[in-house]
Amino acid sequence: MTQQVFYDAPMRRALELSERGQVTGGNPQVGCVLLDDTGRIVAEGWHRGAGTPHAEVDALSHLTDARGLTAVVTLEPCNHTGRTGPCSEALIAAGITRVVYAVSDPGRESAGGAERLRAAGVEVIPGVLATDVEQLLHIWLTAVARRRPWVTVKWASTLDGRAAASDGTSQWITGTAARQRVHEQRAASDAILVGTGTVYADDPQLTVRGDAGELLRHQHQPVPVVVGERPLPADAALRRHPAGVIETGTRDLGRVLADLDARGIRRVYVEGGPTLASAVVAAGLADEYAIYLAPALLGGEKLAIGDLGIRTIADARRLHIVSVEQLGEDLLVIARPTRTPENRGV
Amino acid sequence: MTQQVFYDAPMRRALELSERGQVTGGNPQVGCVLLDDTGRIVAEGWHRGAGTPHAEVDALSHLTDARGLTAVVTLEPCNHTGRTGPCSEALIAAGITRVVYAVSDPGRESAGGAERLRAAGVEVIPGVLATDVEQLLHIWLTAVARRRPWVTVKWASTLDGRAAASDGTSQWITGTAARQRVHEQRAASDAILVGTGTVYADDPQLTVRGDAGELLRHQHQPVPVVVGERPLPADAALRRHPAGVIETGTRDLGRVLADLDARGIRRVYVEGGPTLASAVVAAGLADEYAIYLAPALLGGEKLAIGDLGIRTIADARRLHIVSVEQLGEDLLVIARPTRTPENRGV
Ligand SMILES: NC(=O)c1ccc[n+]([C@@H]2O[C@H](COP(=O)([O-])OP(=O)(O)OC[C@H]3O[C@@H](n4cnc5c(N)ncnc54)[C@H](OP(=O)(O)O)[C@@H]3O)[C@@H](O)[C@H]2O)c1
Ligand SMILES: NC(=O)c1ccc[n+]([C@@H]2O[C@H](COP(=O)([O-])OP(=O)(O)OC[C@H]3O[C@@H](n4cnc5c(N)ncnc54)[C@H](OP(=O)(O)O)[C@@H]3O)[C@@H](O)[C@H]2O)c1
Repeated sequence: MTQQVFYDAPMRRALELSERGQVTGGNPQVGCVLLDDTGRIVAEGWHRGAGTPHAEVDALSHLTDARGLTAVVTLEPCNHTGRTGPCSEALIAAGITRVVYAVSDPGRESAGGAERLRAAGVEVIPGVLATDVEQLLHIWLTAVARRRPWVTVKWASTLDGRAAASDGTSQWITGTAARQRVHEQRAASDAILVGTGTVYADDPQLTVRGDAGELLRHQHQPVPVVVGERPLPADAALRRHPAGVIETGTRDLGRVLADLDARGIRRVYVEGGPTLASAVVAAGLADEYAIYLAPALLGGEKLAIGDLGIRTIADARRLHIVSVEQLGEDLLVIARPTRTPENRGV
Repeated sequence: MTQQVFYDAPMRRALELSERGQVTGGNPQVGCVLLDDTGRIVAEGWHRGAGTPHAEVDALSHLTDARGLTAVVTLEPCNHTGRTGPCSEALIAAGITRVVYAVSDPGRESAGGAERLRAAGVEVIPGVLATDVEQLLHIWLTAVARRRPWVTVKWASTLDGRAAASDGTSQWITGTAARQRVHEQRAASDAILVGTGTVYADDPQLTVRGDAGELLRHQHQPVPVVVGERPLPADAALRRHPAGVIETGTRDLGRVLADLDARGIRRVYVEGGPTLASAVVAAGLADEYAIYLAPALLGGEKLAIGDLGIRTIADARRLHIVSVEQLGEDLLVIARPTRTPENRGV
């Protein structure tokens, strides 16, 4: 306990460093500081994304001699040889004598770092500032533990729940501020899911674009994923997407998500249309909702959400509102499922 | 102009006094102060509601001699013998020599007070703090000028726009805080409109009730108005409503509102169901929307708003959001029509 409090300040610094890393991608944001025996920080490091050194290795790289130092790191050092060697081995080899970390590694292959360190005689102190770090890594931790990406379902509708007018026109329901936010939310995702219906109807680009519609070349572009049995048309705009395109050829959402997990995709943004969005919701796969509400009414049959297989009010899918924001004239409601029996623990 | 600024402070006091009056009912909230020739307030009055003295008469009643005084009143003194005599005559008879007012009387029968006063040699200064008073009286002024009540359409839906589950159950979509607010909004109305469909389906009471469901005996109870061709069932709960019940026997909304206007009804609260609410919206009769959004999803066919006869997105009924409020877990969005061609100037 006393020891833990002693490591709060360096762990807070490691957490700060971790936030310099990339939100998207298969790997988590991790930060690390190395302390001498007076508690002074002598080196800092953070992970910049898949294929680059892990935070511990990055911190060690600044020193020629790390013997006897304490490593304070936000995530349990990995025990897995991926594109880089296991961090547990690197710490042992460098002569680190104590490792303090916040949260355990939930990965099936990478876990076991703490055990490996202890076996080599390194003192291990887990759980320091665990809540703070868990909060930052919530989505990544959930995705890795469940072996499927975190799913955000987005739609734009009028206040009466319509996604288009009866003739199919829907441009534009929401205003520019809302549409710009959609591009930001895309950029914070690894993949964008879209149904074949939307591809055939709208031939969307699904790129991250700026205010003037220009492609943001230096911004991360999530990969578009087309869900459904129909093939992607030969001349589809998605074939020119800078990140490529994944054609699934299936309606099986479980299979699609498992495949994306295997590709290291942690955050999926479902952009519809209504059939795909409703299927994701009905299957209990939505972890978060981004609902754009335009102050307008349309009536008619073009609903943002179709049937969910719900018969009676007691089975309503209950959510809780995380935030409500006014974007220009529109509202953005972020909500997450409430843990209730009818939500099947999602 | 100089004169106007001189009367700002007493007019502000008259406005304050007016707010003590009743919001509901056929008559406006009006306040009046009487000034001596040094500008000191020597008497105050306000209107307590239809059938009670008007503000000017109430102020005069506190003095035995009002000769030579200035009357500052929020609304142009009336020129009409209703349940009380015309205020213009009362002011003349009392020997008032100057009348300052904020906004003109929009009523066809009651207008003309300023002319009558001038004809009797009384100095008349109109337009003092007109904007402030117009804001307070906006709904009443609009209703009287248009000769139909102000119409607020209320509904409660899930975030996907459903008012009930597919088996028809809808109790409860929203939580207690939202439902309590509905009772407050009822209490601020003169009449509650409900379709025969809701009466047959739910047999609602439509009374203003307290937190524990108890009837609030000392609170104003708006009169329920049943719209539609079917007769009110002999055993309907509405027959026991403390304010009585108005059976219209028609679907003709214009006729219903004209009839309510003739009864001195200025504020109508439309409580649904979906068919009636959609008809009111489609007819361009909605002046305000009170949309309760529950953080839940239902899917299915039971929509809060049905068809509005809108074919293409350019014809969407555009609104602007007046306020968004969180009530317990729910949201209350208050919106009003934007003045656009497709909203036909409403
Ligand atoms: N307002 C908005 O936010 C928004 C967003 C996107 C699109 N839209 C509009 O939505 C319209 C398209 O609607 P939509 O519902 O046809 O589009 P959609 O959901 O994109 O595509 C539906 C198709 O996806 C396939 N699919 C994939 N997974 C499925 C599953 N689990 N269950 C059932 N089908 C599955 C099916 O086609 P296969 O036969 O190929 O399997 C299905 O017909 C367009 O007009 C577009 O403009 C609106
Ligand atoms: N979530 C909510 O906020 C909410 C609020 C209220 C009710 N509800 C639910 O709504 C359901 C009832 O739905 P509903 O749509 O049948 O109820 P409704 O709108 O109350 O009644 C519909 C009936 O009103 C009459 N009507 C009056 N004016 C009309 C017009 N201008 N155009 C067409 N018809 C007109 C017609 O019957 P005639 O043949 O008699 O003319 C019509 O069938 C109930 O289950 C209730 O629980 C939900």
